[in-house]
Amino acid sequence: MLDRPVTYDTPPADLNLRQNNFSAGPGALPTEVLEEVRDDFPVFAGLGASIVEVSHRSGAYTEIHERAKSRLASLLGLGDDWHVLFLQGGASMQFHQVPLNLMPRGGTVSYLDTGSWSAKAIKEAEIVARDRDGTVTVAASSRDADYTYIPRPSEWTVDPEAAYLHFTSNNTIYGTQFHEEPICDVPLVCDMSSDFLSRPIDPKKYGLIYAGAQKNIGPAGVTAVLVRDDVLQSRAEGLPTMLDYGTHAAKLFNTPPVFAIYIVDKVLGWVERQGGLKGMVERNEAKVSRLYGALDASDFYRPTVREDSRSHMNVTFRLPNEDLEARFIQDAAREGLLALKGYRTVGGVRASIYNAVEPRSVELLVEFMRRFEAAYG
Amino acid sequence: MLDRPVTYDTPPADLNLRQNNFSAGPGALPTEVLEEVRDDFPVFAGLGASIVEVSHRSGAYTEIHERAKSRLASLLGLGDDWHVLFLQGGASMQFHQVPLNLMPRGGTVSYLDTGSWSAKAIKEAEIVARDRDGTVTVAASSRDADYTYIPRPSEWTVDPEAAYLHFTSNNTIYGTQFHEEPICDVPLVCDMSSDFLSRPIDPKKYGLIYAGAQKNIGPAGVTAVLVRDDVLQSRAEGLPTMLDYGTHAAKLFNTPPVFAIYIVDKVLGWVERQGGLKGMVERNEAKVSRLYGALDASDFYRPTVREDSRSHMNVTFRLPNEDLEARFIQDAAREGLLALKGYRTVGGVRASIYNAVEPRSVELLVEFMRRFEAAYG
Repeated sequence: MLDRPVTYDTPPADLNLRQNNFSAGPGALPTEVLEEVRDDFPVFAGLGASIVEVSHRSGAYTEIHERAKSRLASLLGLGDDWHVLFLQGGASMQFHQVPLNLMPRGGTVSYLDTGSWSAKAIKEAEIVARDRDGTVTVAASSRDADYTYIPRPSEWTVDPEAAYLHFTSNNTIYGTQFHEEPICDVPLVCDMSSDFLSRPIDPKKYGLIYAGAQKNIGPAGVTAVLVRDDVLQSRAEGLPTMLDYGTHAAKLFNTPPVFAIYIVDKVLGWVERQGGLKGMVERNEAKVSRLYGALDASDFYRPTVREDSRSHMNVTFRLPNEDLEARFIQDAAREGLLALKGYRTVGGVRASIYNAVEPRSVELLVEFMRRFEAAYG
Repeated sequence: MLDRPVTYDTPPADLNLRQNNFSAGPGALPTEVLEEVRDDFPVFAGLGASIVEVSHRSGAYTEIHERAKSRLASLLGLGDDWHVLFLQGGASMQFHQVPLNLMPRGGTVSYLDTGSWSAKAIKEAEIVARDRDGTVTVAASSRDADYTYIPRPSEWTVDPEAAYLHFTSNNTIYGTQFHEEPICDVPLVCDMSSDFLSRPIDPKKYGLIYAGAQKNIGPAGVTAVLVRDDVLQSRAEGLPTMLDYGTHAAKLFNTPPVFAIYIVDKVLGWVERQGGLKGMVERNEAKVSRLYGALDASDFYRPTVREDSRSHMNVTFRLPNEDLEARFIQDAAREGLLALKGYRTVGGVRASIYNAVEPRSVELLVEFMRRFEAAYG
C-alpha cells in the first residue's frame, strides 16, 4: 500500500470545523441544532441555569418534553390511541422489554431475522420465553447469505397466533432495508432505530415502534417507544415498575434523560422545517439516487446488497481489494469525508446518510469516489 | 398574602445570567464545566463533528469513557477488584436490577427504610422475590415519624443470612442522611445518588454502590454502578442481557449515553481540581455549618429533621406558616436564589447544596434569610 495519498494535493481538511460526517451511529445531527445547543450553555435564557440543571418537573423542561412528544406523534401521523414514551437503555433494552410486556404466558411471538440486531432481539425473546413457557418462531431469515437481502413476504412463515411479528426496518451493519411494511395479520413490532423519521410510515400497520435516538433524531441516551393503546393494554401484569410500559404511559415516572430529549425536540423541529417526513424522504431519496447511481455506474465499486434490499440510510460497498478500501477510507477522511469504514465484522466501506447528512456531503463523496477511481481504477 | 415583595427594592435578578441554583435534582453543575460544553459545540476540536455525533467505539469517545471510569475509581479509592459501569435508567432501574442480580433463589435480602426512595427500592425487591421464592426484610424504618430521622444501628434487625443490606445514604425529599456507614456482617448495597462524591467513603464496607448522576456528578441520563468483583460473581444466571451486570463489566456492550458521560468526566476532573473527596467534604462542610448555623440561631426558621440525621446535601426547613413559605420562595427567586421549594408531598423550604453549589450562593441565601426574618419575623 502506498504511504501518501496521490489523488489530490490540497491541504487536509480542518477538523476544528464541521466536516462531512458519514458515521453509522451516533450519527450526524443538523448543524443549526448544535449551534442552538452552544447558545444554551452555560445558561438557558430565562432560567438562570442550564437546561440540565433544573427539575424535570419544572415548567421549562415540561414544555420541551411535551412538545417533543407531540411533534413526534404529529410527524408520524399517530392518532390519540398511541402513547409516546421516551425511555432509556437503547434498542438493546427494548429487545428485552418488548417480549417482557407483550409475550403471553404459553404464547408465541414471531421474528424476522435480517441481521445482528434482529438476532439479538430473538435471543432476548428466548430468555423471556423460558420463564413464560413461550415460543419464539423465526418467520424468515437471510442469515444463509450473510444477511445481504431482505426475505420476500412469500418466503415468510408467520404464526397466525403470534402476539406480534418483530422486524428491524433497516440493518445498519449489512446495509439492507425493508421497502414495504411486512404484511401480516398480527401486530407489527418494529425496531426502527436506524431509519426512524427518514420516510412516512403507515401507523395502522404497527402495534409498537421503538428507535434509539442516535441515528436520525438525537444523541445516544434516549429511545423513543411508540405503543398503540390496545397493545399496551394487552401487556403482562406484575412487571418490574421501570420495565412496564404502563408506568411510563401513565406519567413521567422518574427523571428522564433531559439533554437527549431536549436535542430530540430540536431535531424534530428541524424535521418539521424540512417539510416533515415528506420533505425528509425527498431529501433522502435525492442523496440515495446520487450515491447508488455513482456505484452502479462504476465497475470499481461493488454494492454488497441485493438491489431490492438496499438501505437508504447505510450504503455499503466494496472496492477491488482491502488495501484499496483502507486507502479510500483514509484519503476520504483527509478530505473531511469522515467515518466511512464498514462495520468491524464485515469490512468494506459504509456511508451512512441519515436525515441530517447534507446533500452537499454526498456530492463531495461522489466527486471523491470519481477521483479515487481515476487514480486507482 | 402580600402582593409585592417588601424585603428589598432592588431590580429582579437577570435570569439570562447564571444564578444561585438550589435545585434538588437535576442539580447545579460547575459553571466552568458548562462553559467547556459550550465551547465543544457545534464542533469538538479535532473531530470535525460534535462529541455526540461520533462512534462510541471511536478513539475520541473511548478516551473520555475510560478516563471517567478511572477518575471515579481513583476518587473513591476503589481497588482493582471493583467494576465501574455507566448504565441507564436511573436509580429507579437499579431498584430492580440490584435484586434481579443479587437475590438468591429462596434467599433473603434486607433493606433500611428511610424514605420514599427506600420504599420504592423495597417494592421492586418484592417483585423480584415473588419469582425467586425470596424474602425481603425491613431491618429498620423511620416511616413512623414521617422519615424525619435515620434509625440508629441499635434499632436495626439485619438478617445475618441476607445476601445484602440496602440503604439510601441521603434522602432528598426528607433531608436526612446517614453520617456513618451502617455496620453489619453482610455486604452493603447503597443508593448513593444524592450524596455521591460529596465526602470520602470506605469502599471496604460496600458490595455495590449506585448513583444517578443528576445530583452531584452530571446531567440526568447515566447511572454510575460500582460493583465489587466477588459480589458480581455471585449474581444470578441466565438474566436478560442488558440487566445482567456481567454484560457491562465484560465490555462496552451497546451505545452508552455519550453526552451524560462526557459531562461526568468533566465534573470528575473538576472534583479532582478541588482536592478530590477531601476537598469536596471541606467545601461542603463549610456550606453546611453556615446554613444550619443560621437555622439554629433563629426561632423563625425551623429545621424539620432530627439533629443527628440532618442531610448535608438537602437542607429542609419550615417557616411559621405556609403563606410565609410561599412568599419566601418567591422573593428568594426574585433575587436569583432559585428552586427552594420543598418536595411537593412534604412542603416547606428545601435548599439543595450539592457539590457544585458555590459557597457564595449559601452566603447569599443566609443573608436573604436574615433580611426576610427581619421583615416578617
